[in-house]
Amino acid sequence: MKNFAIAVHGGAGTILPSLMTPEKEFAYRNALQSAVNAGLEILKTGGNSIDAVEAAVISLEDFPLFNAGCGAVFTNNGTHQMDASIMEGKHLEAGAVSGISRIKNPVQLARVIKEKSGHVYLCGEEAEVFAQTCGFRFEPNDYFYTEERYQQWLAVKDTDSYQLDHTEKLEKGEKKFGTVGAVALDMQGNLAAATSTGGMTNKRYGRIGDTPIIGAGTYANNETCAISCTGHGEFFIRAVVAYDISCLMQYKGLTLAEACQFVVNDKLVKMGGEGGLIAIDTQGNIQLPFNSDGMYRAWSHADGLVQTAIYKN
Amino acid sequence: MKNFAIAVHGGAGTILPSLMTPEKEFAYRNALQSAVNAGLEILKTGGNSIDAVEAAVISLEDFPLFNAGCGAVFTNNGTHQMDASIMEGKHLEAGAVSGISRIKNPVQLARVIKEKSGHVYLCGEEAEVFAQTCGFRFEPNDYFYTEERYQQWLAVKDTDSYQLDHTEKLEKGEKKFGTVGAVALDMQGNLAAATSTGGMTNKRYGRIGDTPIIGAGTYANNETCAISCTGHGEFFIRAVVAYDISCLMQYKGLTLAEACQFVVNDKLVKMGGEGGLIAIDTQGNIQLPFNSDGMYRAWSHADGLVQTAIYKN
Repeated sequence: MKNFAIAVHGGAGTILPSLMTPEKEFAYRNALQSAVNAGLEILKTGGNSIDAVEAAVISLEDFPLFNAGCGAVFTNNGTHQMDASIMEGKHLEAGAVSGISRIKNPVQLARVIKEKSGHVYLCGEEAEVFAQTCGFRFEPNDYFYTEERYQQWLAVKDTDSYQLDHTEKLEKGEKKFGTVGAVALDMQGNLAAATSTGGMTNKRYGRIGDTPIIGAGTYANNETCAISCTGHGEFFIRAVVAYDISCLMQYKGLTLAEACQFVVNDKLVKMGGEGGLIAIDTQGNIQLPFNSDGMYRAWSHADGLVQTAIYKN
Repeated sequence: MKNFAIAVHGGAGTILPSLMTPEKEFAYRNALQSAVNAGLEILKTGGNSIDAVEAAVISLEDFPLFNAGCGAVFTNNGTHQMDASIMEGKHLEAGAVSGISRIKNPVQLARVIKEKSGHVYLCGEEAEVFAQTCGFRFEPNDYFYTEERYQQWLAVKDTDSYQLDHTEKLEKGEKKFGTVGAVALDMQGNLAAATSTGGMTNKRYGRIGDTPIIGAGTYANNETCAISCTGHGEFFIRAVVAYDISCLMQYKGLTLAEACQFVVNDKLVKMGGEGGLIAIDTQGNIQLPFNSDGMYRAWSHADGLVQTAIYKN
């Protein structure tokens, strides 16, 4: 049997059984499983890893409980500002977009930017002009609306708070980082990674996190690994997390597991950077490290057996 | 004598003696020297490297022949969109901004974002709202106007061309990457880096290059080096150039010179990525590699002897 594999995440943070209902947990696990299956459909017939991660992230963006695409959180002025990026490991080609508000699947726009713009990274309303020239349909604002996200924003919109991004009431100091992502290895040995987010609830000033930053939130390289991150983006940018794991493998000879362990549970912890990531190497080994209470995650190898997990252990 | 040092750049590209006038060359060298001196003033009295790189980049932004601040190139719709970033190597703190049009010295805004925003990276008009709350004065559009940049834009504005960014007429295939930057080591052993740009003439769709991307265009780490890049930004993003040099030193044990040589003259060349960078390590060693015809550059060690160079050798 040819080797291929895929992993997805739906964000990390203060995700605890005590904050969950059985119905919601079932919905989350179902959505994670569907995303893996969307990628597996492509991989098992010999398709490309970049198509697989795009399909998986589209599936996650379309699920309203995750903070990306439909269900993206509200900014300080009541809008949605979404970021996404994608990278493939064979030619190190990448696309990224930030600050868009009307595209149903931001990861699709990142993919088209990679392939058709002559650039890597486009931003804001002008990126939407590019999307329009490529035939993207614009969604009305209420496509992205969910009642839960709206209530969550109402609760904090007149404060300086900006970090909550799941709907459960969180105590001070608790954090959730809503981002979705996927990494995959295809039968041809090509790696790919993609990440998408609605950012932070009540964020202001056009803040951009690590999601659209190649090397920080997303990275893929056929010589090492593919990575998609979720967490407190500022720390992930400063630590150049995704590329750091690649460099630890390529330059220091660490395994994927060793590199992930060091970056997520040592380096980031010392900096104060909460979050996690999903990672896959050229052998199809999968790592899903996080230093927060939980991370929505699911994965499958070539046997097609999809596993999902939310909490620690 | 305590060890300190600084280097600056004013962009790389098809910079050839045959395309230069003596008057212009004198003006460029003078501007580069002034920028180094602005940093030296701070370093020689025991000041911080972050203050030194900020002062040097402000000096370069204020010089109209460089593509940053006053003299920034025109976008496709006749505006200016500037990007900048700054990072210090002790605590790995960083600030970055992109798509701003009304701030005289974008590097100053990047610095204030690092210190006061609680974020790393702000973007667009909303970043200017943050600047306003911090007391930044907005410049009228004509502050950034230079006749040469305007004529340069007029010549290409109805085409798909977007890469020229110096005023000399360039043949097809010739490229110039207008960016300014500085790296410094202070007496306390702290490294810092800063980069600022007006982007590409006639650029569209809110394109962002490597300048505001921590790890790509700018990086500083007291355990390794400080780096500021200039070049075809898309390649510098995909190769995570600035952090790559740091990782080659930290994880593979290369010297600054070896790491710079490999990344700029081997890896980037193989990818097709034209440009260069300035680099400094914790011993005050300076490297100024580029794979294009020239790079505006200047540097000084603690002896205060400022050297400038433009072409190869």
